[in-house]
Amino acid sequence: MTDQTLTPAAFAERLGANADLVGGTLERMLGAQTLPGEISRPARLLEAMRYAALEGGKRLRPFLTLEAARLFGVEGEGVLRAAAAVEMLHCYSLAHDDLPAMDDDDLRRGRPTLHKAFDEATAILAGDALLTYAFDALADPATHADGAVRAELCLGLARASGLGGMAGGQALDLAAESVGRPLPQIAIERLQAMKTGALLRFAVEAGAIVAGASQADRLALAAYGKALGAAFQIADDILDAEGDDATLGKRAGKDAGRNKATLVGALGIIGARRLLGKFVEQAEAALAPFGARADVLIAAARFTASRDR
Amino acid sequence: MTDQTLTPAAFAERLGANADLVGGTLERMLGAQTLPGEISRPARLLEAMRYAALEGGKRLRPFLTLEAARLFGVEGEGVLRAAAAVEMLHCYSLAHDDLPAMDDDDLRRGRPTLHKAFDEATAILAGDALLTYAFDALADPATHADGAVRAELCLGLARASGLGGMAGGQALDLAAESVGRPLPQIAIERLQAMKTGALLRFAVEAGAIVAGASQADRLALAAYGKALGAAFQIADDILDAEGDDATLGKRAGKDAGRNKATLVGALGIIGARRLLGKFVEQAEAALAPFGARADVLIAAARFTASRDR
Repeated sequence: MTDQTLTPAAFAERLGANADLVGGTLERMLGAQTLPGEISRPARLLEAMRYAALEGGKRLRPFLTLEAARLFGVEGEGVLRAAAAVEMLHCYSLAHDDLPAMDDDDLRRGRPTLHKAFDEATAILAGDALLTYAFDALADPATHADGAVRAELCLGLARASGLGGMAGGQALDLAAESVGRPLPQIAIERLQAMKTGALLRFAVEAGAIVAGASQADRLALAAYGKALGAAFQIADDILDAEGDDATLGKRAGKDAGRNKATLVGALGIIGARRLLGKFVEQAEAALAPFGARADVLIAAARFTASRDR
Repeated sequence: MTDQTLTPAAFAERLGANADLVGGTLERMLGAQTLPGEISRPARLLEAMRYAALEGGKRLRPFLTLEAARLFGVEGEGVLRAAAAVEMLHCYSLAHDDLPAMDDDDLRRGRPTLHKAFDEATAILAGDALLTYAFDALADPATHADGAVRAELCLGLARASGLGGMAGGQALDLAAESVGRPLPQIAIERLQAMKTGALLRFAVEAGAIVAGASQADRLALAAYGKALGAAFQIADDILDAEGDDATLGKRAGKDAGRNKATLVGALGIIGARRLLGKFVEQAEAALAPFGARADVLIAAARFTASRDR
């Protein structure tokens, strides 16, 4: 494999190529054409969903889905649909997190947030509809011929993103802000594992599920996804503490101003960087069984840790 | 079958018995115990989900699921879980529709709405988590041994409740309010078929899917569900125009005050009552193939049309 020496530039190119593929899939799914069982697609709601899902973003989650499946030689429409479903789930969560009653953000990826570009009601509904569409995409026979695989994808996404995962993590995050005193490290790590880790982990697992990977391979990839998710969130905390608005495309320094539960707050920048390094090592170690085939995923973990926005 | 002469009192008893069964299932699902893949269940978010899902309501949708399955002799945990999933989806939609940015309601089923009892952020998240949990419940092997059936349930729920169904209908409803002039009847009927009809129809179909009904039987039940959904919404419009706060458990007369798209507005009360009668007849006609076995479902259509709240 020539991937063994994947340079940052080569990784960026691969990230971009996957993003284009997923963008094309999302573009097709979010077209005006109704699917069987749909009565009509209201234009403004669809436009809001497209605004939330089609523009910008690194597409890290679908990248992980696509590359996890490629480990087992699987590519094509089915895994692209699964990747697009994970991205729709992610985009719904951004739209709802940005709402005035939640994080109250005006700017996202350098553009007005969804409720600023449209209105609050439309942002709530577009988020709801993207969340729902993610399950639609996974449950549709176009994603996989085997119904058991489709149901497993739906169940995995639900567990990663609901009460015991992402939505629960966001609830804990909002609660931590209002308490006004810092959480202990272990509580922050659990909060972050729920809020961002669970979906990143599922993004990896989804590729393995679609590809029909063995249980052992799935466990290895889940361990990788878990470590990568932890690394991602620490890197995010460090970026917020050190970045500026222009490179972030959103307001910097807002975590400290709001008493957000972050590992930079709990450990300081140096402690946070050390922990970040530990999680990247864990992510790489989990991929050992795959040898050089997994170099793209190793590069993804390093990219996650060192990204500047 | 003794159901042939189902009196209103006997129907009410059966509705209550089913509601108790579904309530018990929801109570178990919304307990503190985590499921595999869940990291933790944050107490306040869970409490809000329980507030939204466990109290009150006629439980009409899960009633339809349970009774549709009973047509084919199927009862038990699997269909109860499917019925509970439909109810969670319904409760999420109420929580989000009540939000200040949407219908801005303070009262629901005679109690403070979710965002009044908790806060807006929690109401948004609890709705998101109930929506997600509905798919969790359907995709879980505890609902049906056959993965293809579970995936079909997920797909049906998604199509009924997303962009091309309920969420889309709510978007059209909000848009109609802001236009300020009445919609033509055909547009109102489509809006209502999306906003409330699609989920009522799926509630019926879900029972048939779990029970493994034939394609012909499923089509008959889908036609019944569609007509019942249309009847339900007209009855709702009539209730709003004629009812009072105390019997409704929410503010009456608000549709007219807000320029809501209703069939009472388009047709007048007499015209609306006539159309209601037509849809009830359609619902009954669709059940003809099942003979006296379907008397409970016929009673449900009549109940839907004549209910006083």
